[in-house]
Amino acid sequence: MAGDQTMTGTLHLVGVGPGDPELLTLKAARVLRDVAVVAYPATGEDSAMAYNIAREHIGAAAILLPIAIPMAVDRAPGRAAYDAAATTIHAHLDAGRDVAYLCEGDPLFYGSAMYLLDRISAHISVVPGITSLTAAAASIGRPLAARNETLKVLPAPLDSDVLRAELLSTPAAAIIKVGRHFDRIRDLLIETGHAADAVVIEHATGARQRITPLAAFAHDERPYFSIILCYRGEEAWATA
Amino acid sequence: MAGDQTMTGTLHLVGVGPGDPELLTLKAARVLRDVAVVAYPATGEDSAMAYNIAREHIGAAAILLPIAIPMAVDRAPGRAAYDAAATTIHAHLDAGRDVAYLCEGDPLFYGSAMYLLDRISAHISVVPGITSLTAAAASIGRPLAARNETLKVLPAPLDSDVLRAELLSTPAAAIIKVGRHFDRIRDLLIETGHAADAVVIEHATGARQRITPLAAFAHDERPYFSIILCYRGEEAWATA
Repeated sequence: MAGDQTMTGTLHLVGVGPGDPELLTLKAARVLRDVAVVAYPATGEDSAMAYNIAREHIGAAAILLPIAIPMAVDRAPGRAAYDAAATTIHAHLDAGRDVAYLCEGDPLFYGSAMYLLDRISAHISVVPGITSLTAAAASIGRPLAARNETLKVLPAPLDSDVLRAELLSTPAAAIIKVGRHFDRIRDLLIETGHAADAVVIEHATGARQRITPLAAFAHDERPYFSIILCYRGEEAWATA
Repeated sequence: MAGDQTMTGTLHLVGVGPGDPELLTLKAARVLRDVAVVAYPATGEDSAMAYNIAREHIGAAAILLPIAIPMAVDRAPGRAAYDAAATTIHAHLDAGRDVAYLCEGDPLFYGSAMYLLDRISAHISVVPGITSLTAAAASIGRPLAARNETLKVLPAPLDSDVLRAELLSTPAAAIIKVGRHFDRIRDLLIETGHAADAVVIEHATGARQRITPLAAFAHDERPYFSIILCYRGEEAWATA
């Protein structure tokens, strides 16, 4: 811990929710109004999405700190970029300035904030956010799972064998990070009996929200910023 | 749909988050300020917990509608109580009054709101809420899962064989509805290699929040309103 503990700022990892600016929490809105520095990911396709969701709540005097992270299979450039971002954030904290790092959805639900956790030695506070998981369920008005059923969150980049086994043994699943894996995921959902009731939700709660039954999703399209919610009814489940 | 469609009220299923009143969303606060009727579960141990979380945001003129649901293994009394509640709510909707039904956490993440979905034929709008899942992760400052790992939400009442198989095949899990199943769950977590890093979070983000490593949880105690977050590090996982 650098400097005088009582003078060091706090790093707030702030979940800003899935897209609708009204789905920030009251706590997130308060923190964003108060902090001196607001950092946010600003990379590639989803450039500054978290910032765009939260912008109306950020204080006019806040220092903005966009953080560009190279997207590559090789992890080294990304690590170097997070190292550099952590150094910049730490300089603000050491100067006694509170910093908010904006996270689309929730900071600890598959978010990039985890890469800052290990790199910052100051006090860290986490403000949870609405995830794409519950936002997608709200958008289609359907429970994620019933009563005492398992719910699995499955990242699409997982191996097909792993996904197949996990899908066969659950009534309810949410597939995240679909993107370029869409065709393979669709085939797996058909194979495991999940396709009939699966729904593709893109940009949940955002201005560009689109809801499409999996069976109706065009074969030459790819879903963006999407989650696929699957639920095999009790009958299908009992006979699986 | 009874009555004139344009005069019928809307039922809002409103997630009020896990306990901290500041973790309501801006949208939930707005809806609660505006609706004419606020219904909420008022049963047993967690009597009116959702109401207590949200109370400061409810309009002074709102009609309060506590709903008592009998807790019993036999489902018939509960079904009858939800039928009666739906009838009362429908009478308000048919009279043109908007109704909010308060849900601790999120309405569609293992919430009782699902029992109203099938019973109400008016327009229903869902306001997602912060779940105990992300609230618990925020409380301990630890990611729920890393990168492309599976995350399983496992209700403790599931059979031990099912739980064992699911725990053996995942790095990350969240055990919900622990209550009287605690001893059995602890044994299963020890057996499957999840116990060392498991944490019991009670009343996440609430005034009575308590965080206890599983290994330190007293054997003669039972956790209340708790979730157990499990994460087997990469090394344990790779050798499992």
